[in-house]
This record gives sequence, C-alpha cells and structure tokens, in this order.
Amino acid sequence: MTTAQALTGVIPPVCTPLTPRYEVDTGSLTRLVDHLLDGGVDALFLLGSSSEAAFLPDRHRRVVLETVVGHVAGRVPVLAGVIDMTTLRVLDHVRSAVDAGADGIVATAPFYARTHPAEIRDHFRAIAAAAAGRPLYAYDLPVSVHSKLTPDLVLDLAAEGVLAGVKDSSGDEGGLRSVILGRRDREDIGGFSVLTGSELTVDSALWMGADGVVPGLGNVDPHGYVRLLRSAWAGEWDAARAEQERLLHLFELVTVGRGRMGVSASALGAFKAALFLRGVIEHPTTAPPQTPLDEDEIARVGKYLAAAGLV
Amino acid sequence: MTTAQALTGVIPPVCTPLTPRYEVDTGSLTRLVDHLLDGGVDALFLLGSSSEAAFLPDRHRRVVLETVVGHVAGRVPVLAGVIDMTTLRVLDHVRSAVDAGADGIVATAPFYARTHPAEIRDHFRAIAAAAAGRPLYAYDLPVSVHSKLTPDLVLDLAAEGVLAGVKDSSGDEGGLRSVILGRRDREDIGGFSVLTGSELTVDSALWMGADGVVPGLGNVDPHGYVRLLRSAWAGEWDAARAEQERLLHLFELVTVGRGRMGVSASALGAFKAALFLRGVIEHPTTAPPQTPLDEDEIARVGKYLAAAGLV
Amino acid sequence: MTTAQALTGVIPPVCTPLTPRYEVDTGSLTRLVDHLLDGGVDALFLLGSSSEAAFLPDRHRRVVLETVVGHVAGRVPVLAGVIDMTTLRVLDHVRSAVDAGADGIVATAPFYARTHPAEIRDHFRAIAAAAAGRPLYAYDLPVSVHSKLTPDLVLDLAAEGVLAGVKDSSGDEGGLRSVILGRRDREDIGGFSVLTGSELTVDSALWMGADGVVPGLGNVDPHGYVRLLRSAWAGEWDAARAEQERLLHLFELVTVGRGRMGVSASALGAFKAALFLRGVIEHPTTAPPQTPLDEDEIARVGKYLAAAGLV
Amino acid sequence: MTTAQALTGVIPPVCTPLTPRYEVDTGSLTRLVDHLLDGGVDALFLLGSSSEAAFLPDRHRRVVLETVVGHVAGRVPVLAGVIDMTTLRVLDHVRSAVDAGADGIVATAPFYARTHPAEIRDHFRAIAAAAAGRPLYAYDLPVSVHSKLTPDLVLDLAAEGVLAGVKDSSGDEGGLRSVILGRRDREDIGGFSVLTGSELTVDSALWMGADGVVPGLGNVDPHGYVRLLRSAWAGEWDAARAEQERLLHLFELVTVGRGRMGVSASALGAFKAALFLRGVIEHPTTAPPQTPLDEDEIARVGKYLAAAGLV
Repeated sequence: MTTAQALTGVIPPVCTPLTPRYEVDTGSLTRLVDHLLDGGVDALFLLGSSSEAAFLPDRHRRVVLETVVGHVAGRVPVLAGVIDMTTLRVLDHVRSAVDAGADGIVATAPFYARTHPAEIRDHFRAIAAAAAGRPLYAYDLPVSVHSKLTPDLVLDLAAEGVLAGVKDSSGDEGGLRSVILGRRDREDIGGFSVLTGSELTVDSALWMGADGVVPGLGNVDPHGYVRLLRSAWAGEWDAARAEQERLLHLFELVTVGRGRMGVSASALGAFKAALFLRGVIEHPTTAPPQTPLDEDEIARVGKYLAAAGLV
Repeated sequence: MTTAQALTGVIPPVCTPLTPRYEVDTGSLTRLVDHLLDGGVDALFLLGSSSEAAFLPDRHRRVVLETVVGHVAGRVPVLAGVIDMTTLRVLDHVRSAVDAGADGIVATAPFYARTHPAEIRDHFRAIAAAAAGRPLYAYDLPVSVHSKLTPDLVLDLAAEGVLAGVKDSSGDEGGLRSVILGRRDREDIGGFSVLTGSELTVDSALWMGADGVVPGLGNVDPHGYVRLLRSAWAGEWDAARAEQERLLHLFELVTVGRGRMGVSASALGAFKAALFLRGVIEHPTTAPPQTPLDEDEIARVGKYLAAAGLV
Repeated sequence: MTTAQALTGVIPPVCTPLTPRYEVDTGSLTRLVDHLLDGGVDALFLLGSSSEAAFLPDRHRRVVLETVVGHVAGRVPVLAGVIDMTTLRVLDHVRSAVDAGADGIVATAPFYARTHPAEIRDHFRAIAAAAAGRPLYAYDLPVSVHSKLTPDLVLDLAAEGVLAGVKDSSGDEGGLRSVILGRRDREDIGGFSVLTGSELTVDSALWMGADGVVPGLGNVDPHGYVRLLRSAWAGEWDAARAEQERLLHLFELVTVGRGRMGVSASALGAFKAALFLRGVIEHPTTAPPQTPLDEDEIARVGKYLAAAGLV
Repeated sequence: MTTAQALTGVIPPVCTPLTPRYEVDTGSLTRLVDHLLDGGVDALFLLGSSSEAAFLPDRHRRVVLETVVGHVAGRVPVLAGVIDMTTLRVLDHVRSAVDAGADGIVATAPFYARTHPAEIRDHFRAIAAAAAGRPLYAYDLPVSVHSKLTPDLVLDLAAEGVLAGVKDSSGDEGGLRSVILGRRDREDIGGFSVLTGSELTVDSALWMGADGVVPGLGNVDPHGYVRLLRSAWAGEWDAARAEQERLLHLFELVTVGRGRMGVSASALGAFKAALFLRGVIEHPTTAPPQTPLDEDEIARVGKYLAAAGLV
C-alpha cells in the first residue's frame, strides 16, 4: 500500500455531488473519481471541507466511502475525513472509515468546545489508537476550527508515531516551513508527509520541501495540478510557476457568489458549477443552508473556465 | 403542553453523567433529573453545551433523550439540543428528538462552515419545518459557533413563526435588551420566550424583561436559581440580587482546572465534581479529550460548595 | 476635589466639535460643556473614544483640555483620556493632561504591540507613577485594544493603589459584576469607582452596584442619563428602567450610516449630527478618514430625536 | 533617487537602540546603520514595528529620522514609518518625515477606531496627498491593526497613483501572489513595488515575483538576507533556499522570552540582545512596558547566533 510510505503528490479533496433532493449522486461521484484518476492524481481525500463533509449526514458519508472505495478498487490510496466536534464522535467516523476500507484517516483539532493544546494532543492520540493501523493525517484548518496546530505539536506527534502527516490549510507558510525543517532536523521522525492545502502557493510549498497538495480546485482541473507537480519534481520550476499562475487566475471563480452568500457556499458552489459545466457531474447542487449560485453566477464560472482553457 | 405558551423560569441544561468507560450513566442521570425537579425547575434542556452534547456520539444522545423523557413523564417540558454543524446533520437530530418525545428543539447557527446571515435564517427555517410542530429555540453562542445572532435576525424569525424563543448565551446584554424591547414593540410577534444563558446576570436579565434562565450552574444548585427567580417574580429584587451574588461566588468553581486544561473541561469537570461530591452522580467523568480534574482540583470544588452552604 | 472620593454618577465622554477644516471648534465645545452641565452631569471625560481622541492630533488634544478645564473652572471634575499605543507615548499625554489641570487620567491597555498581562500591569503602574497624584482610571475597551482587562488584574491594581477606578466598556457584565463584588469582598481595596461604559444597561449596572456611567449618548441627552441615575439612587427602579428603555430606542441613531461607513463613523457622526440638530454645535463634522453622514442620514437622526422627545 | 524607480532588495526595518533611560542611543544607531550598509542592504526603513515605533514618543521619532538621514547622506533611500491611529495624526508624522528628508513614507491602515474599506482608501489618499511627492508604501499588518488590505484595494490605489508599493506582513501568501499577478496583468499599474515582510519565506516570495524584503531579522544578519537576494536574482535558487533555511533556524531566537512576556517584547528584545552580543549596539534595552530579557534569555540568544555562525 502506497500509504505505508510517505504520501506524496496531488490528493484532491473530492467534491460530493448531490441530487436536487440532497442525496448523494453516486453516478456523478464515480464520474468525478474517473475524471480525477484520468487527471493523474496520486490519491483521493474523501469527506474533507471541499467535500461538504460538514454538511453531510452520516449516511451520506457512508455512501461516499463505499462508492469511492469500491470504484477505485485499490488503484490509488483513498483517505477519509472524520470531521466532527470531539473525540468520541470522531471515533465513530473512524470506525466507519476503517470498515469501508479507507487507506488513511484525516482529522482536525476539536472544535465548538474550547480545548487546551494538551487535549488536542490527546485527541489525536485517541484517533490514532482507533485507526487500526491506518495512517493518521492532521488537518490544520484554523478558519474552521479556530485553533492552529503549532509546528511543535505536529512534530512531537510525528515523533510519537501518532501522525503520519499533516495537511496544512492554515495559510501560515512560516509554520509550514518549520514543520518541513523540523522533520528534516529531528532524528526521531521518519516517513512523515507534509501536504499543503493552500492551492495558490503549491510551487513554493514544493520548493520548500512539501510532499504534495490537497487542492479543492483540483476537482475542477486535476490535470493542471498534476502538471504542476510533475514539473516541480522534474526540476522545471518555471513551468511549475506558470501552471500555478494559470490556476491562481482560475481560482478566482470562488468569488462569484461573494456578498450574497457565505464564503463556503460561493467556493463550493463554484467548484460544483464548474464540474457541472465541464460535464462531469449532473447537478451543481450544494447542501443547505448554502445559497445556490444563480444563473448569472454559473455563467461567470463558465467564463473563468474558458479563460483557463477548460472548455 | 406548557411549551405552547411562552417558556419561563429555570431551565437547566442537564449534565450528562458518564461511566468511567464513557457510557451514559442512566442511573445517575435519573438521579440528577430528580435532583433538578426537587429543586423546582420549570423545564429541562437536554443535550446543550453543558450536557457535553458536542462530546457525545449519537447513540449517547438517544439514550439521554429516552431516559429523561421517560423518567420525567410529562411533569415538565423537556427541550432537546440538536447541536451539529449544518442543516442536514441537524435535521437528523431533530427527527431523533421528536421521535423520543421532546417538547421543544434548541439549535445554534451553523458552524465550521462559513455562512452568511441569509443562510443562517434559512438554517433555522429548515429546522422549524422539520420540527413537527415542536417549538424551536435559537441558541446564541458565539464563543462556540463564531457568529452572533443579531436582534433583527431573531425578531424577524420570531415574527415569521420560525422561532418560539431564544437562549442568549452571547453575553451581549445590550443585544438581549434589544430583543426584549423588540418583542414588546413589534406587533407581529407574540408568545416569544427570551431566556438568558448568562448565569451571573440573571437578576438583571429578569429586570430587563427576560422570561427565564438556562444556567449550567443550575445543575449544582437548582434550588438557588429557583429561589432567585421566585424572588424576582415576587418583586423581591434585593433577595434576588443576594441570591445571584451567592451564586456568582459559587460559579468560581469553574476555574479550578484553568491553565492546565481547556475552559470547557474545567467548567464541565467542576459541575460534575460538584454533583459527585453532593452525592447526585456516581462518577465525575467527563468525555475525552477533556482533561479530568485531579484530586486537588476536586477538593477545591468541595470548598466552593462548602462556602455556598451546599454540603 | 470630588475625585479624591470615589467618582460617581454621569460622566459623559465629551464629543469634540470640529470646524469644516478639522480644527477644534472651541465655541461649540464650550456650548457643549454648558449643555452637559445644564443636564446635571457629575463630571466630564475629555479625549475618550467618543471624543474622537484616536482621530485628534496632539495640538487638538491640548486645545480641548485647555478650553474645557478653563471653562469648567472646577465646577465638576474633568478627566482626561491619554489614548496612545504604549507607555512612553502615553506618559507624554499624561504630562499634558496634568499641566492643563485635569483632575484624573483615563488610560487603556497598550495596543498595536502584542503585550503580556504582566506588561499591561507595568503599563498602568508607570502611568500612575507619572500622574502627579491624579487618580488613574483603567479604560477596558477590547473592541479597540484587542485585549480584555480581567477582574483580577483590575482588582490587584486597585489594591496596589495604582487604579482609582475602571471604566468598563467591554460589554462583559459578568466580569463587571466580579469587579463589583471583588471590591466589596477584598479588604485591601477602598474607594474604588466602577463605571460602566455600556450605555444600554445602565440601570442593571447600577443595580449590580456600579457607581456611574460614561455614556457616549450622554452627549445627546445628558438630562436623560441624569434622570436615570437620580431615579436609581432614589430607589425608583421602574422609573430608571423606563428612562433606560427610552434611551435604548434613541441609541439606534448610531446605525444610520452602517454598511456605507465604519462603526465609529456612523456612531460618532450620529452623535454630532444630533448635537448639530439640537443647536448645540455648529458643524456635524467628524475627523478623517471617517465618511460624513449625508443629508438623508442626518434627517434620520432627526427622526430618532423627535421620537425621543428631544426636538 | 532610487525610489523614483520601484524599490527592490533588502530593506531592513532599523531597530531603535535605546539608552537604559529610554532615550535614543544615537551612537549605537549610527553604528547599526553602518552595520546594515556594510551588509549591503538596498534601503533602510525607519520607525517600523521592529523599530519599536509604537513605543517611541514623537521626539524620539524625530531624533531617529534626523540621525539616520544625516548619517546615510543619500547613499541609500531612507523610508519613514508614520505609524499612528488615524489620518490627522498620521499626517503630522508625514510632515516630520518629509521635513527630515525621508525618501519615502510607509503607513498602515487606521487602527483603534473601527473603519470601513472606503475609509481605509481615503486614509491612504490623504497621506499620499500630504507626502510632497514622496512615494507612499502601504504596510499590511493585520496582527497589529486588525484589518487586512485586500489585493483589490492595494491594486486600485496603485492604479490611482496613491501607492508606490506595499510591504506585506500579513502572512497571506495567496494574497501576496494576487497582488504580484494583478500588478503584471493590469495595464493601469506601473512601477509598483511588492515587498514581503515575512522573513521566513523570502525565497518563495521572490520566486513568485516579489521585489524585495523588509526583514526584522535583517538587523541581526543583514549579510545573510543580502546573500539570499543576490542568489535569487542570479537564479541560484538552491543557494537562496539554503540561506533562507539558515535564517529560519536563526529566527527561532525570537522565542526566548515567550510565555513570560509579550510576543513583541520577546522578538524585539531578542533582536536587540543579538545586536548587543554582536557588539553593534551598547544596550539591549527595549521600551516599556516590554519586559526585558533576563541573563539566561540573552545567553540563549547567543547560542542561536553561534549556531548561525555569527560569533
């Protein structure tokens, strides 16, 4: 299993297509997986923030896991998010993910409750103990959970064998770099993956020594992110930068709904609208209470796709 | 059903006793309910923040609902919290609560995802539509959900018939008062309950016109909060104030673990330690990842109880 | 000098009238002082947030101090704000205030720099040492300085003789109450003033034991706040509450510019527009970069005045 | 004057050496300037956050400006920070800076008052109008001023001719990149400098297209930052990265006082201790209320210097 080694490359957080009645659209989901595999991605991350995991009931989560794990059939590793408020609730998701055959687990710090760093450490320890040998990745997302995982916390848990890697979506590039250097410097750490979730600075994160990226925009343009990584790995940094800059322009599609709806609804709605316009999924539906994009906003998503050469 | 009228009085958010293996301790839970009813409380609120709802798996939530609804058997209204991130997940909890016989539903704004006020309104509308006629109370808790329910939002949803009341734990007393006056001024609002969750300013909230209180500390000393309300309702404001000041001193027990653990763990741990010391529950166990109080901290809880005349 | 005893009553933060070219309009300023004294206020607070102190150059601050101290001529105590980022800069303002004859000093925690509670304590100690015997009041305003003064910090500095009082504009009524009770309980504290800056909950703050209020809205309607205090002090709490509720409705004038300008500009612009419409000051000018209210917004301020019986 | 063209290279925010009695130590200051010029820096930035501008009275600021402008005598451009709360106060600092002969002005968004983006734009416009032709650089520092300058705001003001550049200390590398690409894409913008204040990601910022860096740590090791820039400009990116990684390890000296003092005191104290240990300045004194480093903490700074090959 690839995840026994350090995880690398492009690992998109797979969007969850929905029917107009808010059920999981499994046909669209398998088409989306094919679209991503066709793009050459290295692994899949289910039930992350871009997957609307925070919006999906448990039964939807199970359908997503079973559908994708079955369809992928071991071609690439499949990671499963276990997003929930605190430990016991998260452990239930861990069991579901393990039962469904996920190859790795991705968990955030606790949220809603106000915790201490010592409790955050215990939280990850309990999850790792329940993961039945699957590698555990910490998901650093202060904008949602309202605490930041410090480099020391991440590195200590790596040294303990609790964490197999981190997905850093904090936007704190200095902190990201501290983890990368700490991993190199500390002899008690081996085989630890550093993945960035900042989809606009992938070339520079790779330059610093990151192993891969978990880009929400990778749903829309997996080929672009794969080209970016392949260029960087080949030492063709100018090509990597040019690809990143094209993707940065494309990323502006997340703003089409701003002002009229939440940041989540605008970004996730735009990703789904783009997948709908590209013919990958059948409905651009997002889960409530997110305001849906209107026709004009969807049309503007189309213009971003055209400008990026995607239609 | 009392909840058809505006809800008033002392409505404690019932702690959830746990066994040392983190199962619901139903024996202790029914003793706690008896302790609260003996104190003269007017209703019970299950699965709120003080109940560790954010820490409890769904099966624990169901056990709590069934145990308490069955044991109370209609003597007082039983409200059920449906705390979760977004709409579809909350709706699952609503169905469980309705099925279990809850008399009312208590819901926060969405969290984790970043939403727009229009989406928060739609969230409450969807919950009310699913509540099968049970009254819906908004739970304003910015410290956990990171958005504040504005007075206009609350009052508009009251006028629409979506909300039957609000539990204001925001600490924003000016906003609380705007809701109280708006309820009085607006002719399109009738029968709306304003409850404060700020347990240190109950006398003044009642003075402003609030209908009741949802005090976490009411688990420890329900008799005290009931005396406070009865005094206020009798116009004996000096007695109400004296009682509030006694309770304010008692409330300092929530600080015993500060520094060493999170704010949630220290407060919830202290409430449970007090109930354990008072002989109401069998174990002071709190759910992970909360750090447990140590013996010294539990002993200090005992001193607060003694100072308040509770042992 | 009254300030040798604990300061009590209505102490408005005096607005700073400006000419259209942003100079201090001293004629309007003395008329405003007369308006406030006519209203029966107990002291004056110059150069606070409602005075636009954050917007005024040092020479404007000196003009304000000299104009008002001279005009008041000892009839009531005059407090001076010394709002600036850190200690040495604040000490310069302290010297100016002492030289100008101010009777007391009002200072916030440091801001802009990121300080530790121990440094905040040292900050207040240095100011008190430089105040030449004038009493020092801590100004708790987290919304501007981004840290909260804890009750323990305030009470410890009171016991040390550093602080003569606190103006609590934090909106944290539980914390306010802890200071009030701590002052009563701790034998090492004497003669300490607790003033609320929350102008919508004055009756309840007095009920809890606060000594007075520093209301921005008191510029517009000093008579109302004085009636409120006098009623409360006479034990006529129903009258105090009715007055507070009238003032709460009037306070909504601060929203007339919201959305189009900052919260500061809308509130301070509305106070000045109200004073202009009442004939107290000559120009409703606010300091840059605040967006001025337009004619429609000023007209709406007029409607709030009419509804409150002030025209 | 170089500043007529876009500003590029290493532009350290010059520390302000103080005597033990908190006066500007002009002898140490000129030695520090010589140390920086010897290191090969491209310009100097006086009175920024690392200069303790927020801690210095106006007379100190004037001494700093006159001392350095006189000593540099045109060898490199000298920029002056004008850090203060709002427009009129900032304009006073602009006049002092222009009078003292500064070659450029650096200003933050307003703080303390709560402003609207339209007011922030007006703030910069007023400063540019008062700068007597000197270029104006926006200083994006949300951690101190609690608002973020959006790429659109920066780019629009660049197109208007208000801003000649930006010093981005926000840590938001996606936003930094949007400004860099916006500058390239928008035909209405020419000659605009993008400088990063994030001293741990300079190689990647240059890689993205930034023009230079304003590193606080550049006081301690100007030669290192100059080597980093020269390597990057020569296309020797591996060497640039190795230098950056060395500096990242060195930067950990800012943590020596953490926990016991504020973040500002620990970082600025460590920079000054390092300059003291390197023999550049006479006293490691920082301005109050910052807690001074103790002997042990200073010794630990020395170990970081030794590890970085600086003693």
